[in-house]
Amino acid sequence: MDNSGNDLEKTRKEELKMINERYKAMLQGKNIIRVLSEYANERGREIGYENVFDFSLGNPSVPCTDDYTNAAIKLLSEGDPMAVHGYSPSLGIESVRKTVADSLNRRFDMDYEAKHIFMTSGAAGAIAHAARCVTKPGDEVLTFAPFFPEYTPYINDTGAVLKVVPANTRDFQINFEAFEEMLNENVAAVLINTPNNPSGIAYSTATIEKLADILYAKQGEFGHDIFLISDEPYREIVFKGADHPYVTKFYDNSLSCYSFSKSLSLPGERIGYVAANPRCRDAGIISAICGQISRGIGHNCPSSSVQLAVAEVIDQTSDLSVYETNMNLLYDALTRIGFEVVKPGGTFYIFPKALEEDAKAFCMKAKEYDLILVPADNFGCPGYFRMAYCIDTEKVKRAIPVLERFAKEVYGVGE
Amino acid sequence: MDNSGNDLEKTRKEELKMINERYKAMLQGKNIIRVLSEYANERGREIGYENVFDFSLGNPSVPCTDDYTNAAIKLLSEGDPMAVHGYSPSLGIESVRKTVADSLNRRFDMDYEAKHIFMTSGAAGAIAHAARCVTKPGDEVLTFAPFFPEYTPYINDTGAVLKVVPANTRDFQINFEAFEEMLNENVAAVLINTPNNPSGIAYSTATIEKLADILYAKQGEFGHDIFLISDEPYREIVFKGADHPYVTKFYDNSLSCYSFSKSLSLPGERIGYVAANPRCRDAGIISAICGQISRGIGHNCPSSSVQLAVAEVIDQTSDLSVYETNMNLLYDALTRIGFEVVKPGGTFYIFPKALEEDAKAFCMKAKEYDLILVPADNFGCPGYFRMAYCIDTEKVKRAIPVLERFAKEVYGVGE
Repeated sequence: MDNSGNDLEKTRKEELKMINERYKAMLQGKNIIRVLSEYANERGREIGYENVFDFSLGNPSVPCTDDYTNAAIKLLSEGDPMAVHGYSPSLGIESVRKTVADSLNRRFDMDYEAKHIFMTSGAAGAIAHAARCVTKPGDEVLTFAPFFPEYTPYINDTGAVLKVVPANTRDFQINFEAFEEMLNENVAAVLINTPNNPSGIAYSTATIEKLADILYAKQGEFGHDIFLISDEPYREIVFKGADHPYVTKFYDNSLSCYSFSKSLSLPGERIGYVAANPRCRDAGIISAICGQISRGIGHNCPSSSVQLAVAEVIDQTSDLSVYETNMNLLYDALTRIGFEVVKPGGTFYIFPKALEEDAKAFCMKAKEYDLILVPADNFGCPGYFRMAYCIDTEKVKRAIPVLERFAKEVYGVGE
Repeated sequence: MDNSGNDLEKTRKEELKMINERYKAMLQGKNIIRVLSEYANERGREIGYENVFDFSLGNPSVPCTDDYTNAAIKLLSEGDPMAVHGYSPSLGIESVRKTVADSLNRRFDMDYEAKHIFMTSGAAGAIAHAARCVTKPGDEVLTFAPFFPEYTPYINDTGAVLKVVPANTRDFQINFEAFEEMLNENVAAVLINTPNNPSGIAYSTATIEKLADILYAKQGEFGHDIFLISDEPYREIVFKGADHPYVTKFYDNSLSCYSFSKSLSLPGERIGYVAANPRCRDAGIISAICGQISRGIGHNCPSSSVQLAVAEVIDQTSDLSVYETNMNLLYDALTRIGFEVVKPGGTFYIFPKALEEDAKAFCMKAKEYDLILVPADNFGCPGYFRMAYCIDTEKVKRAIPVLERFAKEVYGVGE
């Protein structure tokens, strides 16, 4: 009996099924951070969570402020439910946009108006909108290693192409030599993240000035705009002595992408914004263009009640001091043990060089000590690893002797 | 002095500016519903809101339930803020997905599991994800006139192409003759909306059965899946005597797109879901594929606190009885006056034929009587108009003599 006809038919049908194969294929690409975090939870169930030193996830470890909670409760208990839960304009609630603009003006001496602010589902939504706004399919977007791996889908799903400028591992400021080589006339936008996930480094005033100078020069040379998309979810988590300027002040064609996830510890609420520099091209209609983009991706707007509650505490942050305490403990310990590491200027990440060339192998060995560390291959910086220290200080303290033991026993490093 | 070189240079630079011109061009296309609604507000400021009969906007006119408000307050006041506001998995909070599945199983005798549910930013987010999930660029998606105009960006921004099957104006069930002509092998999905915005009609069991039969036959003929995307934000607003089956029961390859905007009067909270039929192709991974799509469009998930609060009142609706009261008043009045109109089976819309061929001209003339009616050209059904009766019953009653006067004075229709 000849089955080849049936097989052929079956293959043909398999080819013709209609589930989008591109997205389906993405399911294969496991997110290493999630995999490690799930391992940490599983291991915790086995040996007790207190015994697993989980540095995998960038999840705030301090609660939102009582003022936020009280404002949200007041809206629900005293507000008109038709207003609190009613349709928000797709650009965001007008009064909230005004509150955001006023706050930025107060804090950074800017001149935003409500029309420059577009409310989004966190920084992810902000970047996805900003990128669609200033690129078209085929354009290049440059970012700098080390970089947040989700930039790849954020940018590539717009039809533009993300290209990664290699890291400057000396101080994790920008590698300008490589940048200038890659900055060709197909580049429509440059995407930066400062303070940076995963390096923890804040770009200095000198770095931002030099970046702006280059972009201005190349805009003239190429005869078209190059937008600077500045991803700033860690803007409020800056440590003593760090030089961390407000990026938008330095470059006209800039879009600032913000999230309240880290500053107010509201990651699940998905609330943030795009703030268009009042001096950028089409500044007055950037928000409206973002609104048109929303129509096509079904975003519409963040929760109306969350918009209103955040506006009530616009200048507040959670108590973020634990992150600096943890950073200092870890930086001192890592340096003492013998790791090569640049001192973070902000965020809740630190980014040491692994003790062997293969950071994945290094992190797998650390797992044996119940130290959950993330290799930085996916961050575009092989040989390094990320520690997210948004955990209790007590646990950071207990992790240090384990790190010491690991470095000494496996690599013979340390006293 | 020759300026032509400068002009050329200027033109070239204009062409080369980098704001996405496609989205910018969309700004020109004014949304007629918004324009009319803004006019109604402006006119209200002039002559008093009580004197403007605004039937333009499909915005719920009843508040959410007290149980919803109390559940949300309890979460905020007694819940752990780290859990209430913490990251939701991108597919939705597991317990919420389970609650949704259990509710659908109870109510519609289905066998959903949590894995079949993907939490979204309302029905808009649900449709945008579902469409990306089962189409690829270039595929056709068929929908039926009259249809919600936002389907055009929801579908066309995926890269697929929305094609509209002409209306069956006799009873606003499906025009099967036109449908079968248009159902070619490039069709990857069919998008329906029942009860329907703007017609108010619920598709009968016979309609859904016939639709399913045709789709099953064509799947066999074409050798590929055809998905049925069912947009169901008005599922709970169904009037006495209406035959309104649960679509998913009739067709395996179906994705149900739901929103709590209308049923719980939470349109600003942007909360809904995709429920994948457990018997559809790749049923077990549809949610995960939606999660991958989310990565690229920056959606991530609806607000965590809203997800949790909705789950507490999953089987509730607001008091929706006012919509049926208003519908009966309007249907009786319109019929008595002499309008051609099909009695709605649900929603808060009614869809009469205009008293002249040009429904736009008809609605402009109605404006002179402070009757704000929406012409249906954008809904794919010229010659008809939509009235959204999600307003106070008292105002509906006062609008009726005005409608009578308008029909009589302008068109000589009525006693």
